[in-house]
Amino acid sequence: MKQEVLRTLRAILGREHLLTAEEDLACYSFDGSGGDILPQAVAFPDSTEQIAAILRLADKHRFPVIPRGAGSGMTGGAQPIHGGLVLVCSRMNRILEIDTDNLIAVTEPGVITGELQSALQKKGLMYPPDPASLKFCTLGGNAAECSGGPSAVKYGVTRDYIIGCEAVLPSGEIITTGVRTEKGVTGYDLTHLLIGSEGTLAVFTKLTLRLLPLPEAKQTFLLLFSAIEQATELVAEILQSGIMPCTLEYMDHTAISVVRKMLSVPLPDSTRALLLLEIDGSREKVEQQAGTLRKFLAPRPVTLQESTTEEERRQLWQARRSISPATFSIKPHKISEDVVVPRSKIPDLVHYTSRLALELELTILTFGHAGDGNIHVNIMIDKTDRQEYARGLEAKKNLFEQVLALGGTLSGEHGIGTTKAAFLPLEINPATMSIMQRIKHLFDPNNILNPGKIFPEESEQFADHLGDQR
Amino acid sequence: MKQEVLRTLRAILGREHLLTAEEDLACYSFDGSGGDILPQAVAFPDSTEQIAAILRLADKHRFPVIPRGAGSGMTGGAQPIHGGLVLVCSRMNRILEIDTDNLIAVTEPGVITGELQSALQKKGLMYPPDPASLKFCTLGGNAAECSGGPSAVKYGVTRDYIIGCEAVLPSGEIITTGVRTEKGVTGYDLTHLLIGSEGTLAVFTKLTLRLLPLPEAKQTFLLLFSAIEQATELVAEILQSGIMPCTLEYMDHTAISVVRKMLSVPLPDSTRALLLLEIDGSREKVEQQAGTLRKFLAPRPVTLQESTTEEERRQLWQARRSISPATFSIKPHKISEDVVVPRSKIPDLVHYTSRLALELELTILTFGHAGDGNIHVNIMIDKTDRQEYARGLEAKKNLFEQVLALGGTLSGEHGIGTTKAAFLPLEINPATMSIMQRIKHLFDPNNILNPGKIFPEESEQFADHLGDQR
Repeated sequence: MKQEVLRTLRAILGREHLLTAEEDLACYSFDGSGGDILPQAVAFPDSTEQIAAILRLADKHRFPVIPRGAGSGMTGGAQPIHGGLVLVCSRMNRILEIDTDNLIAVTEPGVITGELQSALQKKGLMYPPDPASLKFCTLGGNAAECSGGPSAVKYGVTRDYIIGCEAVLPSGEIITTGVRTEKGVTGYDLTHLLIGSEGTLAVFTKLTLRLLPLPEAKQTFLLLFSAIEQATELVAEILQSGIMPCTLEYMDHTAISVVRKMLSVPLPDSTRALLLLEIDGSREKVEQQAGTLRKFLAPRPVTLQESTTEEERRQLWQARRSISPATFSIKPHKISEDVVVPRSKIPDLVHYTSRLALELELTILTFGHAGDGNIHVNIMIDKTDRQEYARGLEAKKNLFEQVLALGGTLSGEHGIGTTKAAFLPLEINPATMSIMQRIKHLFDPNNILNPGKIFPEESEQFADHLGDQR
Repeated sequence: MKQEVLRTLRAILGREHLLTAEEDLACYSFDGSGGDILPQAVAFPDSTEQIAAILRLADKHRFPVIPRGAGSGMTGGAQPIHGGLVLVCSRMNRILEIDTDNLIAVTEPGVITGELQSALQKKGLMYPPDPASLKFCTLGGNAAECSGGPSAVKYGVTRDYIIGCEAVLPSGEIITTGVRTEKGVTGYDLTHLLIGSEGTLAVFTKLTLRLLPLPEAKQTFLLLFSAIEQATELVAEILQSGIMPCTLEYMDHTAISVVRKMLSVPLPDSTRALLLLEIDGSREKVEQQAGTLRKFLAPRPVTLQESTTEEERRQLWQARRSISPATFSIKPHKISEDVVVPRSKIPDLVHYTSRLALELELTILTFGHAGDGNIHVNIMIDKTDRQEYARGLEAKKNLFEQVLALGGTLSGEHGIGTTKAAFLPLEINPATMSIMQRIKHLFDPNNILNPGKIFPEESEQFADHLGDQR
């Protein structure tokens, strides 16, 4: 990046909002999946107009712009793999409006998801998407990746709650998509085209969100199993029984073992898997559904524990949200996937990963959002052990092929980024891939916006882009 | 269309599946909003491959292709306004799969919405979108227009239930979008880009639908009001009270008057407006919500009638679904809009239309999906009365401007088609319109697929495209 460009960036942003010192750049070289390539600069814009000016400059001088929120993404979406300018939206963190009459909020992209949720809770409202990183991830990042979370089984994911946005195209043009009403079909659905596009088509500058009334009550159940397939086979059955949980999380015994010490409630040693199930709604409805659940489970091989205190519930959730970081007590690195299969195929998937772990002599954990078939598969490795690393990569490729054979998809909520780009052609046929790439070219003819993400790069071989790390 | 092209079409389709006689062409010249321009031919393909071959031919010879299902659309989407070939998907009416374990169905586009719903009901399942035309409209048409219906207030619209599709691009390329799992973020969301694109980007050949378990019980309430604003002001309040209706329909006194004779239950003469409210769910939940509703309404100026028999319920729905055709007892033509405003603005909108009716000496009905702010405004006219017609057009333009001023949108579920194309720039800014049009050009460089829809044509003036009719 030329000095002249840096000078212009400083003029747009104000001197203190552009970082170029190496120690600062290092902080913006990675996301939740790792990364070690430094950008040339890091910008902290404060307005739509600043972002438009930056993109016009980038388009003219052809330098990459990598938009990001908190950098908590899991697939390399925020990594500056081709250098350039990292565009951090953290200063654009204003909740612009909460319309309690119409259940709509308008926010800037840098608002932290959990902070919006707290603000809404005080007004008796809810914004459902709840990624594990909700205490630090941002709504803009959630929109870019179409984040999910445990509540997706009942409430859906980010795309189900963003009904409109303002965004800046790589040309600097500012577009306004969608509506701020419950319904709307005027022109093409650009809102959904941008959600999940991983910062490759436009930069979000405002988001219009659909809200729900906060449920009156919530109850938490822990279902303990002495055999793993007892848990996995129950998932589809529970959802067909008339119970509509707002959480249906699964952990295998390895996932349990890494967070067991965080729980004050002791789990029996025989526990080989568990389901964490929650029901929400009016008090009457929760009671009624709890009754249905108890009756449904009574004849089945499962131990039911009901959380009675808020503290127990808090611990359970802290444990659940800590699984991913806690896995590093097993091995220093991991290959972390968030594949999805039809719910009825979860037993097959989990059985397959167990077999894969045995065959390839690897530790593989499975946990996650069983209710919607979105299973997090963590293949634990030590990258300095070249042979183990190679076996890990082999496991990843086999896993993806098996997931697709089961009618599944490569990613439920983490996106493709760099870590799965090489595998995208396994799922998406050439004609479909071609029209996606032509859309990218239409929006971004000079390929300045988050280049190298989603689509395999020309030089790319499977082996080059297999590495997930932290 | 040259003889050579017709010969090739016959070879692709089989002689009996291509119509060219004028009396046949006339049957495919209009949709639910009218139309009188004949196509040159009508094709009834039976497979994805036939559609691909037809589109390749059209792209080569540059003739328009107008895909359609039942032609029940309300905004001209299925009208062959530039002639060409009407592509009717009615033979592709197979339900390919109902996966009860994973709550997924796969269908062809010509399946009648109501027929899928009946098939699902027998298995205890539900596909929620329920346009008033559900007994004859098709899933492909619903997808193209992103149709809604009364159940949208609780369950959402078509875009919330189509999770993937197979579609043919104007080039003849076959793409496969989305997933058949609950979640998925792999590449750009082409599914949602195609839904609501009104047959201008691709032709659907398979749809993957998300299903829900059929609710156990449903209860119907009729809320009668002696003043219109008592009804409109209650809508937002009901939805904030903890009641989640699966239907919250509104009719003003004119709408009531055109269907009154279809009801065996007499309505008091003082009835100036009504709300039709339904609650569904488990028996316990319905009872609990009904109790909450009775308590909520008790102190308010409303007469509550509870439907006790299935026959009463059937009549009520028949009356509701008959409003649109029944309005022609008032005047021979109408300008029919499906604007949306934030729920809290419904009283303002309805008040505005009353004023407009008075000022312009017109009969204007308001009815529709109050629960999501989607109000059907029917401006009744006699087109042969040139002055009345002109006043009708003036009312339409004023209505749109008011709707946008209230934070609303031009269409909730009918789309833009030809009847609103000239007005789209009132809602969508030039940069956003430009990227939409460039997407159209990317998909369809020769403009063969449903030309003249959504976007105002170059020669178009407001006055040229104002006419809705039947």
